[in-house]
Amino acid sequence: MARIVYVNGQYLAYNDALIHAEDRGFLFGDAVYEVCPVLAGRIIDEDHHLARLERSMGELAIEAPMSRAALSHVLRETVRRNRVRDGSLYLQVSRGTAPRNFLFPPDGTPRTVMCFARSEPFDKLANQAQKGIAAITTPDLRWARVDIKTVQLLAPAMAKEKAKAAGAKEAWLVDRDGFVTEGASANAWIVTKDGEVATRHAGSGILRGVTRTVLMEFLAREKLRMTERPFTVAEAKGAAEAFVTSATNFVMPVVSLDGQPIGEGKPGKMTMRLRELVVTAAREGAAV
Amino acid sequence: MARIVYVNGQYLAYNDALIHAEDRGFLFGDAVYEVCPVLAGRIIDEDHHLARLERSMGELAIEAPMSRAALSHVLRETVRRNRVRDGSLYLQVSRGTAPRNFLFPPDGTPRTVMCFARSEPFDKLANQAQKGIAAITTPDLRWARVDIKTVQLLAPAMAKEKAKAAGAKEAWLVDRDGFVTEGASANAWIVTKDGEVATRHAGSGILRGVTRTVLMEFLAREKLRMTERPFTVAEAKGAAEAFVTSATNFVMPVVSLDGQPIGEGKPGKMTMRLRELVVTAAREGAAV
Repeated sequence: MARIVYVNGQYLAYNDALIHAEDRGFLFGDAVYEVCPVLAGRIIDEDHHLARLERSMGELAIEAPMSRAALSHVLRETVRRNRVRDGSLYLQVSRGTAPRNFLFPPDGTPRTVMCFARSEPFDKLANQAQKGIAAITTPDLRWARVDIKTVQLLAPAMAKEKAKAAGAKEAWLVDRDGFVTEGASANAWIVTKDGEVATRHAGSGILRGVTRTVLMEFLAREKLRMTERPFTVAEAKGAAEAFVTSATNFVMPVVSLDGQPIGEGKPGKMTMRLRELVVTAAREGAAV
Repeated sequence: MARIVYVNGQYLAYNDALIHAEDRGFLFGDAVYEVCPVLAGRIIDEDHHLARLERSMGELAIEAPMSRAALSHVLRETVRRNRVRDGSLYLQVSRGTAPRNFLFPPDGTPRTVMCFARSEPFDKLANQAQKGIAAITTPDLRWARVDIKTVQLLAPAMAKEKAKAAGAKEAWLVDRDGFVTEGASANAWIVTKDGEVATRHAGSGILRGVTRTVLMEFLAREKLRMTERPFTVAEAKGAAEAFVTSATNFVMPVVSLDGQPIGEGKPGKMTMRLRELVVTAAREGAAV
């Protein structure tokens, strides 16, 4: 759990981290966020995350609350004050507090900035990756603008609960045509039996994951065969390997889907190779 | 603006009405709400609203924070402390505060209850109804469970902003097949040239509005011809009359759609007759 939470200019003890009841994040889901991994006290892919946050704010006409440099300072200070070595960092910006009205408040209404960091042992994650995770599939109930990283996360939360009830860790969301869009909180990938690595194209029912982008750069660099294309649940179940990418999981093998083993029912070779590439780069702070 | 806000057992001065930064309403849009009209200090259709709130909580597996009688007491006390005669009452229940995790927090996590009331002169509303409002149409971007009244309201907020930019007050949301679902914050209705009153059936892309339910009871009682069916934007533009129903507007004539006059471009006779029925019943506290 975070000990110190940044709220609008102040670093507050957890219990004092309060926002107003008429914050638009609370009343309308009118807020955007980012989660960054932290390894050895370093924020991974910070520029990618802040660039995406800026895009999210731009799409919703939320004016940036401060410069990228100032936000970056808040992120680093939040990690430092929470004494996080390995873990994650959470940043949320809402449109601010105003008497409830669907219409946006006047320009200049101060946005609400909230940030916390918490420790999560990397070993636990690494052990999980050795075993892989089970996933289920469930209809994608989300709104049409999932390319924007908003806090409107009830559908993913419900999907994760459904996964948990089935003894799984992740849920893959399925569009009305039977194609997987992405995971509830991760991008979804398969490796076909002839070695093609596939994930749905961005701009079509998914969020452009930072780890997804980073991994695509590696795949290009390593000259591995990668295709951005949708795939069905049936194709995923018949694939050689499957995995998800996210800021907090890096690359995580998916070893079963709806209870049906994928490939040999254990983490695939290609998946673990890709995980190694991404984790090593993050650890080394390699520029990607 | 509300002066007193109820938050988790306390009636607080506006500026002290705070919730925790890790409230699930703020982090996940994991909260439901109701808005009730207040006339002459009385909360209108309270039972309908509390029943719908209970349904919303049930669909999301949010345990009720207190009995209906206790909630009802909070509503009345909030109206009283804000000295509201005519206006509206807002009630929100979130799943509560817990360290951020998509999975629901353990059973027994206290839900967050927030309630405020504010005055809005009834005359202003009545004058608006004499003129009617302009509406635009825009794609319905919302999630699949719009039957649940959650705070995931960014799409309606964006639609209302788009309406405002076009000089209109309301936006009618349109599904991918070209049919109107409902307004951004109201149910949508038309009156055809041969006198049929039509609104989309509940359970199909709309919220079951309390005023919609009340009006349907009146239509049945008055033996007027009413059909629950979807209608296209083109049909709405060619209709004799159009209107919206909502808790804060009761029945409000829509006199143009996308800049095109509906009927004679002024509030229709049937619409104003229905408005009169609904407003009179609300004023008289008639059991409906």
